[in-house]
Amino acid sequence: MYNFSAGPAQLPLPVLEQAAAELTDWQGSGMSVLEVSHRGKDFVACAADAESAFRRVANVPSNYRILFLAGGATGQFSAIPMNLAARGATAAYLNTGQWSKKAIKEAGRQGVDVRVVADESASAYTTTPEPGSFTVPVDAAYLHYTPNETIGGVEFPYIPDAGDVPLVADFSSTYLSRPIDVERFGVIYGGAQKNLGPAGLAIVVVREDLLGRAREDVPAIWDWKVMAEADSMLNTPPTFSIYLLGLILHWIESTGGLEAMGERNCAKAERLYAAIDASDFYNNPVQARSRSWMNIPFTLADPALDADFLAGADAVGLTNLKGHRSVGGMRASIYNAMPADGVTALIDYMTEFERTRA
Amino acid sequence: MYNFSAGPAQLPLPVLEQAAAELTDWQGSGMSVLEVSHRGKDFVACAADAESAFRRVANVPSNYRILFLAGGATGQFSAIPMNLAARGATAAYLNTGQWSKKAIKEAGRQGVDVRVVADESASAYTTTPEPGSFTVPVDAAYLHYTPNETIGGVEFPYIPDAGDVPLVADFSSTYLSRPIDVERFGVIYGGAQKNLGPAGLAIVVVREDLLGRAREDVPAIWDWKVMAEADSMLNTPPTFSIYLLGLILHWIESTGGLEAMGERNCAKAERLYAAIDASDFYNNPVQARSRSWMNIPFTLADPALDADFLAGADAVGLTNLKGHRSVGGMRASIYNAMPADGVTALIDYMTEFERTRA
Repeated sequence: MYNFSAGPAQLPLPVLEQAAAELTDWQGSGMSVLEVSHRGKDFVACAADAESAFRRVANVPSNYRILFLAGGATGQFSAIPMNLAARGATAAYLNTGQWSKKAIKEAGRQGVDVRVVADESASAYTTTPEPGSFTVPVDAAYLHYTPNETIGGVEFPYIPDAGDVPLVADFSSTYLSRPIDVERFGVIYGGAQKNLGPAGLAIVVVREDLLGRAREDVPAIWDWKVMAEADSMLNTPPTFSIYLLGLILHWIESTGGLEAMGERNCAKAERLYAAIDASDFYNNPVQARSRSWMNIPFTLADPALDADFLAGADAVGLTNLKGHRSVGGMRASIYNAMPADGVTALIDYMTEFERTRA
Repeated sequence: MYNFSAGPAQLPLPVLEQAAAELTDWQGSGMSVLEVSHRGKDFVACAADAESAFRRVANVPSNYRILFLAGGATGQFSAIPMNLAARGATAAYLNTGQWSKKAIKEAGRQGVDVRVVADESASAYTTTPEPGSFTVPVDAAYLHYTPNETIGGVEFPYIPDAGDVPLVADFSSTYLSRPIDVERFGVIYGGAQKNLGPAGLAIVVVREDLLGRAREDVPAIWDWKVMAEADSMLNTPPTFSIYLLGLILHWIESTGGLEAMGERNCAKAERLYAAIDASDFYNNPVQARSRSWMNIPFTLADPALDADFLAGADAVGLTNLKGHRSVGGMRASIYNAMPADGVTALIDYMTEFERTRA
């Protein structure tokens, strides 16, 4: 069974097996990790271990704080202006698709003066802006962008240059999929439910000098400074999600860390794009240099065959390939936990479907 | 092993066993419930089942909406004024302890004119206000109170009369512990991690006529009307917490529903209070009519014996009995999942400890 869901998404089987095995008796406590107090020494150690594993795996410098927050990336769409920009202040955004647009909309609700300095709507969001093609206002509180658009399957092949303006990036669908140069960013954030665990957890990496800029009325659980001082435990955190994140981080380390992960993810994506490009039956619309390693949408030459394609895929254990309704066709999300064999199985199925049905 | 943690807290063993058994293969899908899309028909059905089970178990009338939100009760401390009161509007609060105070503080940050119409600080939060002893401003946007204070072990023996002002109640530590007359309330809310599942989920029950009063800048994931229209799935919800909530609700139904649950919880609490009151060695400070069924703090006559008491309890499988630092001594949290045998074991241990050490 290979699960191509865009998120929540396939998790590493060894992680699920460990979680299942210890779900009624965690660390010999006689209790489930679901039952223990977040203030108890066992869980405090578990959360600290997840934090230090994240720091190690992502090579997060010591002047950045790692926060575990509730509400997912969508919650942070509000928390970002609340933490970084006064009402009426300028904030710059790059618009490369559906998730950029959601972030922009929420910022507007928070009363910031949103300047969309690059907008790829003219290409139906199949492109990223050329480096150097946009100008960030020097007085902007931050520049926000979406390194990977889950729906469009578009990914930045470079890190935008924001000058002295703090760069804020929604890494949800590409989080820890390869090495990352954290120092280029002011804030990195994202939901865990694609590469890093279950739904219900946002991981925020914030440079310390950006703490303390929050508005007076930011809700306490989203006040990055307050949460940094409380080790993300001002209130009861999503404990099971943090526990599972820790298991996944250890799994990433056991498979060679982010260098090896990035090589595997690149190879998976390249093979799938090569199969699509070698065929006249399948098509991916995204500009070559902006193709995502994580989310690969493709269409069939004859949309009337879509339902048959999906039913046949399901029958051979390839699930959740239906594309987002705004794009149509298919979408294969191939996050960290998708093994190379899963991509091979998909390519084999696509080849056979084209041979027999095209 | 009996776990007296105040939350996250003991869960029903049959629920944990089912979750463990199907953690790698949910409903024969070959996937974990952690891995499936929240937009897929299987999970949509799972969430709908949890919602309808909650409605059935708590007897929620059809003119109330049930929302599953991220951020716990502490998040809702901000969301309540954001959804119900304009900046500068009046909101009334009853202050009966630490959780009331947190709710009051967050409301103040949201710019409402907080009127604390009853304050039990003079009793060191060991009391609830007499019915009729406080006046709610007729122009208040709502009256907020905390039916059960987890730290102080204080519980309202009645539902306050707020007249035509919507009554808003933080049920976190007493949620579905007995039947509840939902129609007396405008909004009921609480974190799930005590009686109803894992951390990371707030359950909000809101009367429909109160939807649509939100401020323009409420974060979308906390806009009750938006979330009601989206069946709590504007963004990716905490899927595993919702799944586990459903299992727990079915367990409540299988054990006789809230009538039977309330009878069991009352009997457990009465036995423990009787044991405390029958001893000169143990003491509970709370006013008799305001004693909580859920959280029972008690002190030893000689605090020098506290460490021995806790170590001895741990040794016989009675864990997490240490009291909150602001109260001291011990605290036994005996939520829905604590069996009567757990209370018996605690009483037996207390009796033996007093006999040999007092």
